[in-house]
Amino acid sequence: MRTDNYITVALDGTGGDNVDPQSVASAVRFATVFEPKLKVIVYGDKKLQTALESQKISPDRYQFEYAPVVIAQDEEPRKVISGFLNSAMRLAIEAVKDKKASVAVSSGGTGPLVCLSRHILGVIDSVRPALCAKIPAGPGRYSLMLDLGANALSGSEDMYEFALLGSAAYKSMFNTDRPRVSILNVGTERNKGSAKVKEARDLVESNSKINFVGFVEANNMFCDYADVIVTDGFTGNVALKAAEGVASVFLNAHGIKKFFSMLARPDWLEPWQYNGSMLLGVDGLVVKSHASAGKEAVAVALVQAYKLARQNIVENIKNELKKA
Amino acid sequence: MRTDNYITVALDGTGGDNVDPQSVASAVRFATVFEPKLKVIVYGDKKLQTALESQKISPDRYQFEYAPVVIAQDEEPRKVISGFLNSAMRLAIEAVKDKKASVAVSSGGTGPLVCLSRHILGVIDSVRPALCAKIPAGPGRYSLMLDLGANALSGSEDMYEFALLGSAAYKSMFNTDRPRVSILNVGTERNKGSAKVKEARDLVESNSKINFVGFVEANNMFCDYADVIVTDGFTGNVALKAAEGVASVFLNAHGIKKFFSMLARPDWLEPWQYNGSMLLGVDGLVVKSHASAGKEAVAVALVQAYKLARQNIVENIKNELKKA
Repeated sequence: MRTDNYITVALDGTGGDNVDPQSVASAVRFATVFEPKLKVIVYGDKKLQTALESQKISPDRYQFEYAPVVIAQDEEPRKVISGFLNSAMRLAIEAVKDKKASVAVSSGGTGPLVCLSRHILGVIDSVRPALCAKIPAGPGRYSLMLDLGANALSGSEDMYEFALLGSAAYKSMFNTDRPRVSILNVGTERNKGSAKVKEARDLVESNSKINFVGFVEANNMFCDYADVIVTDGFTGNVALKAAEGVASVFLNAHGIKKFFSMLARPDWLEPWQYNGSMLLGVDGLVVKSHASAGKEAVAVALVQAYKLARQNIVENIKNELKKA
Repeated sequence: MRTDNYITVALDGTGGDNVDPQSVASAVRFATVFEPKLKVIVYGDKKLQTALESQKISPDRYQFEYAPVVIAQDEEPRKVISGFLNSAMRLAIEAVKDKKASVAVSSGGTGPLVCLSRHILGVIDSVRPALCAKIPAGPGRYSLMLDLGANALSGSEDMYEFALLGSAAYKSMFNTDRPRVSILNVGTERNKGSAKVKEARDLVESNSKINFVGFVEANNMFCDYADVIVTDGFTGNVALKAAEGVASVFLNAHGIKKFFSMLARPDWLEPWQYNGSMLLGVDGLVVKSHASAGKEAVAVALVQAYKLARQNIVENIKNELKKA
């Protein structure tokens, strides 16, 4: 739905660990104020409907759809695919399939979200979809990192596909010709690491369209060493959470140290700025918001989804994969 | 060598990315001042000998052995085993084998160090050796984490052995009966993660002597969630380096932010306090110091090695493994 130059985002308003209706509603309000060309279809329960009404958002900027069914984080894939017909997550993804929305946003479980997205939207060129996030790489600079957990474990051929997907996404998002691609490893030397990362390296190096700049170690993840950091879903998820864990130790300091910590924190590390991972590789745009995201973070995910849709990122990725 | 209640540490004075002789020499001085019952045999080149002499350390507290050969970080295992007879790393480990020292300390490459230690000292009960570090878990609290990269990748049975080794080491180091053991995973639910971590979980749970408390996510690594955190060598290395990476972003802030950052940093996060990983599972005590460790960190590794030797940790681990 891009009538009148508007972009419509379909929001699953039910997912997440501690999503309360007021937070979701105020995130919708914030995002629509921030982006004048953004419309939101919100799927959720009666409480969310009431919360949205209390926010006095202009009625031509959002639409509520009653979808009270929630899919548990660890629901079995088989049941996710065949059931939950009236769930907010399923209806948000179907809205993308049916062109009622340009992108779906959900804070629900990664497992169900990936499973339903693949099932409803299909995948591009039989690739294995991956979760890809913008991570900080210095003031005003970003890298893309994938996979962050769409797959419990991925092999070297999957990682080769992640390099293609990440490279295509980076080109589309940052208007660059040859983004620097690296693979996360335990060392930078060629003989370091597991057989899997070495095989992935060989595959990536065999394609001259990929600008491979070598292995990167996790301590250099946030150092602008590369534009695209490729890893398997297990390692990527652990690496990003370990980073979050340390950041929160700093931020959860007590008393005077907490005060200094807030003054010390580089602005570009504010974690809520980076909410909203794309599910790359499915034939439609799906953005995952952090399960424990606060209202600012949900608003950021909505705006991020809006921008990605405005860039036609899925079409751009399809075109790039044809060339690769 | 434990004559007169002294503990002797054999130090490879050559390894590391930026180990300069003055740093090594002043680390030796600092450690011998800090621990009055510590003696050091230092293996290295003429420059190191000169640096040591300039430190005016009491001659009954250290001994210099000329061993100028350095083993490169990424030297081939085959060559490491058969060659480098006069290398500081090899001679330090041989000193442990020959009971001239109770423990060897090296800042050299992980690959050569693990390879030579296994070759010279042998392994206990055919286990797969793992690098194990004390990581911060709050003020005055520590967890042990392993493997941190002794193995490029480890399977579920290896991870079961790491649980036994870590548990035995924790008992010896902290005098606890039933240390809490967890496995690093992408979620805490039983159905989350790779087949490997689930198999490792099943193996660990099948042994009632191990006090398994479930999966832990990387954002809770430093939260005292468990006493022992088990992971494969690839994931563990990435997780710890990602954590270091974020910490250094905070610490490398510029200008006024750097000042606030120093005030904000919790004391118990000072990274040099945690230098010195044990290589568990070999039949002799070997401690790896961080390759880019400064002089404080090398001194901490020497003191850490001294304390581990004083506790007879290798004998304790052997006894524990017999019971398991």
